[in-house]
Amino acid sequence: MTPTTREDCLRRDAADPLAAFRAEFALPENVIYLDGNSLGALPAATPGRVAEVVEREWGRGLIASWNDAGWWDKPRTLGAKLAPLVGAAPDEVVVGDGTSANLFKALVAALRLNPGRRAVVGESTNFPTDLYVTQGAAELMDVVERRVDPDNRAALAAALAAGDVAAVVLSHVDYRTGALRDMAEINRLARANGVLTVWDLCHSVGAVPVELAATGADFAVGCTYKYLNGGPGGPAFTYVAHRHQAAARQPLTGWHGHARPFDFAAEYVPAEGASRFLSGSQSLIAAAALESALDLWARVDLGRLRAKSLALTELFLELTERAGFASVTPRAAARRGSQVSLRHPEGYAIVQALIKRGVVGDFRAPDIMRFGFAPLYLRYVDVYDAAAALADVVRTGEWRDPAFARRRQVT
Amino acid sequence: MTPTTREDCLRRDAADPLAAFRAEFALPENVIYLDGNSLGALPAATPGRVAEVVEREWGRGLIASWNDAGWWDKPRTLGAKLAPLVGAAPDEVVVGDGTSANLFKALVAALRLNPGRRAVVGESTNFPTDLYVTQGAAELMDVVERRVDPDNRAALAAALAAGDVAAVVLSHVDYRTGALRDMAEINRLARANGVLTVWDLCHSVGAVPVELAATGADFAVGCTYKYLNGGPGGPAFTYVAHRHQAAARQPLTGWHGHARPFDFAAEYVPAEGASRFLSGSQSLIAAAALESALDLWARVDLGRLRAKSLALTELFLELTERAGFASVTPRAAARRGSQVSLRHPEGYAIVQALIKRGVVGDFRAPDIMRFGFAPLYLRYVDVYDAAAALADVVRTGEWRDPAFARRRQVT
Repeated sequence: MTPTTREDCLRRDAADPLAAFRAEFALPENVIYLDGNSLGALPAATPGRVAEVVEREWGRGLIASWNDAGWWDKPRTLGAKLAPLVGAAPDEVVVGDGTSANLFKALVAALRLNPGRRAVVGESTNFPTDLYVTQGAAELMDVVERRVDPDNRAALAAALAAGDVAAVVLSHVDYRTGALRDMAEINRLARANGVLTVWDLCHSVGAVPVELAATGADFAVGCTYKYLNGGPGGPAFTYVAHRHQAAARQPLTGWHGHARPFDFAAEYVPAEGASRFLSGSQSLIAAAALESALDLWARVDLGRLRAKSLALTELFLELTERAGFASVTPRAAARRGSQVSLRHPEGYAIVQALIKRGVVGDFRAPDIMRFGFAPLYLRYVDVYDAAAALADVVRTGEWRDPAFARRRQVT
Repeated sequence: MTPTTREDCLRRDAADPLAAFRAEFALPENVIYLDGNSLGALPAATPGRVAEVVEREWGRGLIASWNDAGWWDKPRTLGAKLAPLVGAAPDEVVVGDGTSANLFKALVAALRLNPGRRAVVGESTNFPTDLYVTQGAAELMDVVERRVDPDNRAALAAALAAGDVAAVVLSHVDYRTGALRDMAEINRLARANGVLTVWDLCHSVGAVPVELAATGADFAVGCTYKYLNGGPGGPAFTYVAHRHQAAARQPLTGWHGHARPFDFAAEYVPAEGASRFLSGSQSLIAAAALESALDLWARVDLGRLRAKSLALTELFLELTERAGFASVTPRAAARRGSQVSLRHPEGYAIVQALIKRGVVGDFRAPDIMRFGFAPLYLRYVDVYDAAAALADVVRTGEWRDPAFARRRQVT
């Protein structure tokens, strides 16, 4: 294969059907942002939308905005806007609370739907909050917790076939390696074994087409502040398949999840549908930022998004392989999310040196450099320049600067 | 007593030591806002602070703001700023999640600290989310739920003395009547009976000085969007007394509550202190609005706040009693929060007619008209004019307009 040149990249950008979206983001100058898998960039329309909610809906509308500005129904209207991005019906998704709380709610609900089974299966190296919330829920529900490597199909199949497994908690895309799991196959396998699935979509929604309903997923949760660009720490979402909505019982039974919240009744009666997964009031200011992002997403063709995502990661893999880097991200397109993770013993310092050059990725212990590719605001030429900068940082040894020595790092 | 005149009120406003705070709020014109007990008004500094976080910290700082802008520690820094308002040490309060989720966490932690006891006591007519979350936690923990009227001291004493009670969940101020409970006395009573207290401060924080530590409270939760003016649906807080911090175990064990979150360890180990009550990432945009409000609160003398609050509610009670209205709010100052609730069979329509006149209160079924008095932005003359408008709406019968017939209403 002829090596890709910078001119090739400029040509691909000129022909990119998604190229116009880049202008809809307020990106800092002289930065190539490859960390949209951790915190998505700011949509240019968002500051105005947030200001509108703060100044007009809150400041002038005050309490009347609960009705007049649609605040009360916001978890449902945002859920309906998010639903197409995860292959769900509009009434299968609600927005609110954080990923950790939602995972707890979904997992407890799944365990209650399978009361005769006393085990839950998680991933050996899932994102920590998934591990810890699963531990916490398992302790409370008095079920056994087991862990398996979901990329080892035989091991996963054996774990799901144990006979006593009520639910399995899996990330659709692995946060370290970027491996994309076969949701359809795993859902089939789980269902054949009487196991309910609880998917974490944090690292796939907005990067990979997700087909929850078509593949038969039972529950799912995810955050909105990575590829979806909903704002730092923005509200998470919960998917509840239609077939479970009538029977599912989650434990955080706040009044927003009540069947008739305005009756102020003495006893809890769960709402119809996914609304029963709501608990209490949610920030309407945070919701404004997310809504602005979702309105942008409504114009995105997910097929084109996926095609560009794969082209960007393929390009970065090609260029970094040529420069001698080792990847832990699957080489097969069908097994890859929208990130590339490279292994290097000095990864931490190299990532810091790259940031200093304006190429922003991140690092995950012990030796993984993560680079996320958000197709809405990244250009092919950015990928080229980032790979060149990476090779240069290693070639020159500039990462040895003591300023790049290890300090605390967050997601 | 000589009836208070409008001129008296203007004189009191001129002498009010808190009068200058009114200019720090962006209030709509021609509105007397008596619903700050439901949704507090917008501080004038907040839009700028929110825009700064959106455009600079998120838009330009991107992922680096988790460290550079103090995002990671925001639940603790906001908690420390809130702590003086509830009589807590800075490290006894964390901010994040909603009131419902925090009540669930605190109550489960309290029940776990008292494992030999198998009952929880709640209020007969607490705010619904308190009732429902207590039900949900009781079901999950397999403890019996009992309810009592906490304003009936003999009944409360008997309930706490039953011998099998692990925890009691109480609102500091009743959301309907505005009755203020004697936190010191109830904490003594609870402790004498081996019962742990879980206080809901939603309707007292920012209206009444709260002395959690001095009165020996065990746990407390509350919202920030009522008297604190932290923004619609803004993040809630959790108080964990120092003496419980080492042993308390909450069930929503997300990675933000881990002892060493950046180790990405396989097993959950709770953080030191109140941080173990954290779960996952929280909206930094919502946090910006709250921080702006808390910075204003740092300049408020709580003694003066309480004195003005009592003077405002006393004035409203005097004026409405003179007009023939019946109150369900305690007449004794020591038993009163910062709201006055009047009873009227046509309360719903009367409240709507008042809103039409620019006097904003709210209604709680079956017949309660609620009026909240936020001392930072309400004037004595507002109280006078509101009472006059109320009397006028009833005298003229303008509430009979079909436009004021019942529809859905939210908190």
